[in-house]
Amino acid sequence: MSKAPLFEKISVKGTLFPIEVSMKRLHLSHPYTCNGQEFSSLPMYDTSGLHGDCRTQVDPHVGLPPLRSSWNFPRTVQLGVAQTQMHYARKGVITPEMEYVAIRENQQLEEWIRSFNRHGKKVEPITPEFVRQEIAAGRAIIPANLKHPELEPMIIGRHFRVKINSNIGNSAMGSSIEEEVEKAVWSCRWGADTVMDLSTGANIHQTREWILRNSPVPIGTVPVYQALEKAGGKAENLTWELYRDTLIEQAEQGVDYFTIHAGILQEHLPYAERRLTGIVSRGGSIMATWCRHHQQENFLYTHFNDICEILKSYDIAVSLGDALRPGSILDANDEAQFGELKVLGELTKQAWQHEVQVMIEGPGHVPLNLIEENMQKELELCYEAPFYTLGPLITDIAAGYDHINSAIGGALLASLGCSMLCYVTPKEHLGLPDRNDVREGVIAHKVAAHGADIARGNPTAWLRDTLMSQARYSFAWEDQFNLSLDPEKTRAVHSQSIAASGYSAPNPDFCTMCGPDFCSMKRTQKMGKGN
Amino acid sequence: MSKAPLFEKISVKGTLFPIEVSMKRLHLSHPYTCNGQEFSSLPMYDTSGLHGDCRTQVDPHVGLPPLRSSWNFPRTVQLGVAQTQMHYARKGVITPEMEYVAIRENQQLEEWIRSFNRHGKKVEPITPEFVRQEIAAGRAIIPANLKHPELEPMIIGRHFRVKINSNIGNSAMGSSIEEEVEKAVWSCRWGADTVMDLSTGANIHQTREWILRNSPVPIGTVPVYQALEKAGGKAENLTWELYRDTLIEQAEQGVDYFTIHAGILQEHLPYAERRLTGIVSRGGSIMATWCRHHQQENFLYTHFNDICEILKSYDIAVSLGDALRPGSILDANDEAQFGELKVLGELTKQAWQHEVQVMIEGPGHVPLNLIEENMQKELELCYEAPFYTLGPLITDIAAGYDHINSAIGGALLASLGCSMLCYVTPKEHLGLPDRNDVREGVIAHKVAAHGADIARGNPTAWLRDTLMSQARYSFAWEDQFNLSLDPEKTRAVHSQSIAASGYSAPNPDFCTMCGPDFCSMKRTQKMGKGN
Repeated sequence: MSKAPLFEKISVKGTLFPIEVSMKRLHLSHPYTCNGQEFSSLPMYDTSGLHGDCRTQVDPHVGLPPLRSSWNFPRTVQLGVAQTQMHYARKGVITPEMEYVAIRENQQLEEWIRSFNRHGKKVEPITPEFVRQEIAAGRAIIPANLKHPELEPMIIGRHFRVKINSNIGNSAMGSSIEEEVEKAVWSCRWGADTVMDLSTGANIHQTREWILRNSPVPIGTVPVYQALEKAGGKAENLTWELYRDTLIEQAEQGVDYFTIHAGILQEHLPYAERRLTGIVSRGGSIMATWCRHHQQENFLYTHFNDICEILKSYDIAVSLGDALRPGSILDANDEAQFGELKVLGELTKQAWQHEVQVMIEGPGHVPLNLIEENMQKELELCYEAPFYTLGPLITDIAAGYDHINSAIGGALLASLGCSMLCYVTPKEHLGLPDRNDVREGVIAHKVAAHGADIARGNPTAWLRDTLMSQARYSFAWEDQFNLSLDPEKTRAVHSQSIAASGYSAPNPDFCTMCGPDFCSMKRTQKMGKGN
Repeated sequence: MSKAPLFEKISVKGTLFPIEVSMKRLHLSHPYTCNGQEFSSLPMYDTSGLHGDCRTQVDPHVGLPPLRSSWNFPRTVQLGVAQTQMHYARKGVITPEMEYVAIRENQQLEEWIRSFNRHGKKVEPITPEFVRQEIAAGRAIIPANLKHPELEPMIIGRHFRVKINSNIGNSAMGSSIEEEVEKAVWSCRWGADTVMDLSTGANIHQTREWILRNSPVPIGTVPVYQALEKAGGKAENLTWELYRDTLIEQAEQGVDYFTIHAGILQEHLPYAERRLTGIVSRGGSIMATWCRHHQQENFLYTHFNDICEILKSYDIAVSLGDALRPGSILDANDEAQFGELKVLGELTKQAWQHEVQVMIEGPGHVPLNLIEENMQKELELCYEAPFYTLGPLITDIAAGYDHINSAIGGALLASLGCSMLCYVTPKEHLGLPDRNDVREGVIAHKVAAHGADIARGNPTAWLRDTLMSQARYSFAWEDQFNLSLDPEKTRAVHSQSIAASGYSAPNPDFCTMCGPDFCSMKRTQKMGKGN
């Protein structure tokens, strides 16, 4: 084994812009041959930013350097002027962000991608031009506020790698600013592609500022949470002006996407009342309370054009919230849910008129047999805008194990075309996640997202699995650890198993489940060698 | 809340036979109304046997009482005489075991089942006659060796509740007899429907004896493991006689089903050689080694009629092993796998001629998009015999989290018709599971199996979810804990969250994730009350 670090941060230069795309490279213990190509190392998609670079120490009070400021594509916010990725895409202009995500998705594996041929389907490396087309068509988004220069751009869309989001945020139930920044960085370290700050308690502005200045991934928020704090916690006291000011406050800080519950209308409320679990979306229940109290239409709906005017100036993407997502299996795919989804489709068109990038949020609790209908309806009603879903959870009774519950539904939905999975932690329905819950939640959804990438025929995902299986078959334990989603855990579990067994060799040439005599792989290899 | 125990062991008398079907009853903190019916308690399917009855203390050195001996259906083993459930089913005879499983599946919820009408599909309670028909047709099995009287019968088939199996067993890598019995009881406690004893190390006979005498669930084994020990660990030294003696030894002890790798033939070996990961089944690699060495056809195949003669005398079910299951994503659904599956279909017919009950083992590592083909091919090639699968795992890189990986693939496959899921623990690919791994593995697959039951429209599964969601919506925390798959864990996690928050009430009327002001359910309920 080489004495060089096994994981190394690398950067890949752009050809159109002076960008350096951050990745990591795993040095393998010996070369592997796949499709006639030799791999002694593997470039890997990496979301940890500078936090994952052992040569650098990021001071959280200073934050990350403003990466995007030097990319020769100057834009400054001008209210009412669209400077969004969609704006440029439609004009035929490739931005640095588009080139960045193209390079990032390919992982320097262009030759492998071209040679990949699974089920007779040839694949091409992703080009900046392809990214541009997908964004122009609304099928993909790059959430990247002009005021978040620390960001390493990423793309959300169904012709790209499946992404995952991790939720953090303090609430009245406790947790401090430092803890939340730590959780954001921790999420990225384990592979979260975006982070939503769902803080609702004290210090909401300051917490967000710290998170943004330290975040290499897009940050999303639900602005109505802060607006509600400003309204003294009373939904009926919310006003458009108060909400608008909150949007601008957060826009100025650099938030990359906003969840906006603009699709829940007065006409939907009777449907929600007939449900087993009514409205379980926090933002949704706030807006429903407001509508009821004032007997008026949801001001997020009536002011949606005004909202888009703000979003387009900063290039903030809108994540259209599913206020009426089912909160129980029994409520899945009902009139309330699909009625709102239809409105989300209308709002999508409206946002696109402003050249605002859009994604659509999805359920919720949905039985396995009704998941496909969710994907079909979303594509149809929302014109193929990227789908961003929480789970779905396939049963109501998995409290304590809802990360698994959500990973099951999410994997299936993503294999059918969903673009990003919002993680759920083992604490779902029970309390706020701690560091370990965040790690468990992220990895469970990485399994789901990666499994969906495999199902969707993503060549870079297939390469990693192929290398892993070759490593497993050749008892290259270090490579197995490093190719797994959680090298720390696999290494630790394996060491414990070896120690408990009494075998002295740290890396035996048999599988540690079965022992030397019953190792099928050892036996089969022996056979292959002419037994 | 009542001071009676929340969970109570109950037994339901049969009408055809003097059987008492063991269940548990959960007493709810207040009555719930579903479909116009009131539920102040919920009878639940329970696999823990007497071990789960707090009024009884089972001495593992004595074992469980011989329940089935008093059922007025005397059968004693007569070599060569079929006394299987299939034998009686085909003759039109209902056995006590058939009545037992019918009552067990219905959970005393006949009225609810009749009232259940989801997606316009009416369902009827399961009758002993329906059970008989399914067994006669080979679509379901009741694994129940005449020599395992301690057993509480259960049924495996796609028109019944999805079951899960937990694997235990010592290996050369350590663990003691007491530990394995403890693991078997522990598995049942968390909901395993069957247990496979995969021991390969020392004391194999004694370990199995202890497990059987203490097991209320069917025990499966892979007899070739013990036969190999007898052959000094050398596959080439295996003989039919040695294997036959092992079968009889285990049959006499009361093993309920045998995994037999009779479908791997010489003609398949070249296909396996072309694979990325060859043969990953332990039994499969043993038989392949034997075939290669002797240049002869698999003796389990050539002696399959002799095997069936033994099995039918004891009513041991055969679980036809998938020696060529894919061990990596790349090898999924290949000629080796489906070639063997075709042979398993032929063997199914052969076993049925002997009136031996059959199930078919399935993969393995399979991408999400290829899972459905596995189910279709199994139904078609194996004449609808129940499918019993390991996962499938949807990616190769989830070491440390393979229980989640397997739960994802298993949930999808079970929703499409798979009858039983073999659990995978977080230690898969890394080492032998300990108690906590067993619990994690069982619950992960309970999530998958229950999610599949929901998708398949099982009314009793729907009732539990409906009650859970009502409990959640009414902040009935104790009911939420008890309706979840792991009450101990949910209760502990919730207590910690409450303690960390500083709220004094132990059961607050808001969700502990969001705190009092942001609780959507609290808000929605207030609204409903005329806000």
